[in-house]
Amino acid sequence: MTSHSINDARLLNRLRALGEIGRNPDGGPTRLAASETEKLGRDQFVAWLKEADLDVAVDRIGNIFGVWKPQGTESHDPLMLGSHIDTVINAGIYDGCYGVLAGLEVIATLREVGFQPSRPIVVGAFTNEEGVRYAPDMMGSLVYAGGLDVEEALATVGIDGSNLGEELAAIGYAGSHEPGFMKPHAYIELHIEQGPVLEREGFPVGAVDSLQGISWQQIIIDGDANHAGTTPITMRKDAGVAAARVITFLRERAKASNTPTVATVGCISFEPNAINVIPSKATFTIDLRDPDEDRLLAEEAALADYLRTVAQEEQVTITAERLARFQPVKFDGEIVRTIEEAALARGLKSKRMTSGAGHDAQMIARIAPAAMIFVPSVAGISHNPKEFTSETDLVAGANILLDVVCKLTAPRE
Amino acid sequence: MTSHSINDARLLNRLRALGEIGRNPDGGPTRLAASETEKLGRDQFVAWLKEADLDVAVDRIGNIFGVWKPQGTESHDPLMLGSHIDTVINAGIYDGCYGVLAGLEVIATLREVGFQPSRPIVVGAFTNEEGVRYAPDMMGSLVYAGGLDVEEALATVGIDGSNLGEELAAIGYAGSHEPGFMKPHAYIELHIEQGPVLEREGFPVGAVDSLQGISWQQIIIDGDANHAGTTPITMRKDAGVAAARVITFLRERAKASNTPTVATVGCISFEPNAINVIPSKATFTIDLRDPDEDRLLAEEAALADYLRTVAQEEQVTITAERLARFQPVKFDGEIVRTIEEAALARGLKSKRMTSGAGHDAQMIARIAPAAMIFVPSVAGISHNPKEFTSETDLVAGANILLDVVCKLTAPRE
Repeated sequence: MTSHSINDARLLNRLRALGEIGRNPDGGPTRLAASETEKLGRDQFVAWLKEADLDVAVDRIGNIFGVWKPQGTESHDPLMLGSHIDTVINAGIYDGCYGVLAGLEVIATLREVGFQPSRPIVVGAFTNEEGVRYAPDMMGSLVYAGGLDVEEALATVGIDGSNLGEELAAIGYAGSHEPGFMKPHAYIELHIEQGPVLEREGFPVGAVDSLQGISWQQIIIDGDANHAGTTPITMRKDAGVAAARVITFLRERAKASNTPTVATVGCISFEPNAINVIPSKATFTIDLRDPDEDRLLAEEAALADYLRTVAQEEQVTITAERLARFQPVKFDGEIVRTIEEAALARGLKSKRMTSGAGHDAQMIARIAPAAMIFVPSVAGISHNPKEFTSETDLVAGANILLDVVCKLTAPRE
Repeated sequence: MTSHSINDARLLNRLRALGEIGRNPDGGPTRLAASETEKLGRDQFVAWLKEADLDVAVDRIGNIFGVWKPQGTESHDPLMLGSHIDTVINAGIYDGCYGVLAGLEVIATLREVGFQPSRPIVVGAFTNEEGVRYAPDMMGSLVYAGGLDVEEALATVGIDGSNLGEELAAIGYAGSHEPGFMKPHAYIELHIEQGPVLEREGFPVGAVDSLQGISWQQIIIDGDANHAGTTPITMRKDAGVAAARVITFLRERAKASNTPTVATVGCISFEPNAINVIPSKATFTIDLRDPDEDRLLAEEAALADYLRTVAQEEQVTITAERLARFQPVKFDGEIVRTIEEAALARGLKSKRMTSGAGHDAQMIARIAPAAMIFVPSVAGISHNPKEFTSETDLVAGANILLDVVCKLTAPRE
């Protein structure tokens, strides 16, 4: 292992600086994919890539790569590091940005100490990982891995009616490279846990060997608009009540099971949305996750059954549209062990764990050996301005990434 | 009783013509109070008032009156007829407009046949009866009856952030008369039932002797935004789940009781409203109605109790704001009997009933003897483009109104 260490101040200052871009007056940053505010974040990242003297490449889906290709390594596939810099609405400053800036920091450090890698090293920022404005999430890495056609992805219409392709062109990040133009030798993503496990169990580092499956659906319920004062309860076709029953069902089911299954309804709207009119239409999203594919399938089936029950009991029609579906992912055992060894060498306890969140690593894992490194999130809070990881943990995670990169690109004897 | 009858074709044609104003391409009319489209409806109504040679008066809250004041009646309080011409979103064409246009039709008919009333007769269209854009509903008649200060009402901010006073001025209906400037001798409102009772029980006419109480509240639930994939169910403060539990509670409670209590949640929104973020905030409205004040109070108390329970169980904070509250109303027994006699004289069975909906009549009842006449709504559908009443029923209701007006303004022997 190397005895080098990253430049703490540079990493932390850049993390804070990026976190100021697109910040809401009263909260955290909001940089939805391909928006005007995200453009500012992208421009800053690109400026830092150039400051590190890296070659900047942007592909057609807007993924940004900083490439370090020392002489003699051109014929080898690159080791890829990365994550994303788009955010949810009123987000924290660590989610995604930490992995991207730590990847850049690792490369900058290795160059400064005169390290000679046996292959190119690349840091990537993938487009629309959050999926708030455009579905599915992790879109940039999914397209890069060949899991979604780039034309289809560019044609995606957002929650604001915008077109992703047009938006990328408008902000100047509709690149010319074909997604997947660099085949990674391996991929490593450093990320905050976004959950409470590491902090609660007292581990400074997580060696992530798997990632839970994700099922996203949009549910549309059609009933009958009617007068709120004169329509007896028994004569109603109340789409809002039907939606509320589904939400409570998901909560009670998840609570009753002693599995890690989680279910979330994050978006909802009623029509006509008037105080004295029974809702004729309810539209909402369901986010189901489980580390076990069979259990995830069972949850989806149970939901489908309940939708049929509610449709019958409330005399409404219910349609479910799949927005995204990803099976649980197993990461590369050798890289995971390398992460554990690197942590040990720095005197840090690491915990083998499953990722509860979706990450670009699960997509790149389709085309290259991949793994993730987690650092603790205080109180497990994420997607929230209160998202926080201590500087000590942030620096430790980046140094472990540095050591793993050195190991994986060490000059062959 | 008189043997006169109204001009069927004129009434029905005007009803259809008004129903075309502000119509959605794919549905019914939308003329929210003081909007640009409602202005068009107001302009048409005023044009018809002038066509009938009535004096037009607009008060400060935008209520429009057509006044017939024959010589020698100036010293007497007028008999007032009326309702409203604002609508909900994607409405039917009968709600409110029928009572306003039938009132105008009755006056026009009486003038044409040379009837000599003993007092002036007025037809009014009251501002913002629906309360969709501005709360509370029945605002124009409430202000007219002195139940709400006109300045306070004009300062109301709408769901679209607009200011009612400014909007009324913008469309040219910020009148100069003080609300209440004409004290009604009595008030009669003809309206569609908006419920299924008359049709189901086979009555062409309802003699409405009371009106149920209404309680409107806005509920705001504050929880914690957090990552949908990594936050265990037990660690969540999910404002959306808490809202869904309240909605299902109201439904189950209303269903379990064998009272006429109705509860409706018509509006809802989540924040940040992202598919993979646990809602930090849920805002929704509750519309509670009951003909019995004690029972309505009990329902409000039960809701308040449940809100406390949910706040504790879901670890969220819940605030409830009262948007509107009206006690049940008893109408004038003598006018109700006059309505029954008029129906009988026309060979029509009438049913004594309670109004499930709120109406301007409940406000004017504070300052004058009042009552209502209902005609059947097919399948009880209202606040919906499918709202329908047969032409036979519409004409019959207007003729009963004509007869009642004649009776109440008959020249003293």
